[in-house]
Amino acid sequence: MSEQPTVTASHPSGSIIRGSVQPTDPAAVREIVGSTGFFHDFEVDVAVELVQERLSRGLASEYHFLFADLNAHPIGYACFGPIPCTQGSFDLYWIAVHAAHQGSGLGRRLMAEAERTMLAGVPGADGRPLPPARRVYIETSSQPRYAPTWRFYERCGYTIEARLKDYYAAGDDKLIYAKALS
Amino acid sequence: MSEQPTVTASHPSGSIIRGSVQPTDPAAVREIVGSTGFFHDFEVDVAVELVQERLSRGLASEYHFLFADLNAHPIGYACFGPIPCTQGSFDLYWIAVHAAHQGSGLGRRLMAEAERTMLAGVPGADGRPLPPARRVYIETSSQPRYAPTWRFYERCGYTIEARLKDYYAAGDDKLIYAKALS
Repeated sequence: MSEQPTVTASHPSGSIIRGSVQPTDPAAVREIVGSTGFFHDFEVDVAVELVQERLSRGLASEYHFLFADLNAHPIGYACFGPIPCTQGSFDLYWIAVHAAHQGSGLGRRLMAEAERTMLAGVPGADGRPLPPARRVYIETSSQPRYAPTWRFYERCGYTIEARLKDYYAAGDDKLIYAKALS
Repeated sequence: MSEQPTVTASHPSGSIIRGSVQPTDPAAVREIVGSTGFFHDFEVDVAVELVQERLSRGLASEYHFLFADLNAHPIGYACFGPIPCTQGSFDLYWIAVHAAHQGSGLGRRLMAEAERTMLAGVPGADGRPLPPARRVYIETSSQPRYAPTWRFYERCGYTIEARLKDYYAAGDDKLIYAKALS
């Protein structure tokens, strides 16, 4: 039995969205996230670790992925999962498009597919489908260089629900974006 | 080499605070957390898993514990750790005193020792001491039955920095308490 149905959808750019995770994906995530120039090395490492944990632990990891493949090569991805001890709240941990493919609408497409997947009920750690997602949270930094990121989330319908002062470092707050799904 | 210096301090109740984790502690945590009547079974399971992860992974787990032992039997504990990708922010994951020993000031004592430990610089995943904690976060529910918990955090100097509506479930918000250490 396949552990998760593969989500496949074509995109005007020619890319294909898939929900399965492949052994070559950790390296692809390192390339995609690194290409954006937005993240510290230790943050790139965290992004890669989530894919590795999904590969090693399967659904028990509770990390779910969507990859956008162009000519069988990943050029963007989203990573999300249910928040433990909540009923229907999800974290969107990562969403990134390779620098060479930004501005094509692929980020919006990945976000829409991720939300559709969460609403449809992803498999839980035991393989049984979870109830539909009610709310999605995204955390990001208040540093001005993230302004394009904020605008992307806002275009996708997310609003700032909380700000934690000096969370990442002195002068670097955490912004918590949220969106109710329905 | 011991992986973490044991913190030992006596308390008027006769209990001793220790920072080492023992193989019998998962069962002790189940007893302590279960005795409070505050938590769902799946939440008790999460509390126990954190101790198990510390025992199996050691410092790499990034979970730190303080136990209050009375006659060598744990009657309360705190669990905390550095928040990945932050400089000096910590989560206090759990703090609980066995129902039979509440009202003795042991919760306050555990909180003060936990803050002192975070300020002193706990060992990181590589064993080297982390910089002192700047900020501590505690998450809890908005459900009225948690009112004694809110009052405890407030007496310890924590204030509500954010509220995430319907986070745990419809009508059950997440409150994020924070305190700046110095």
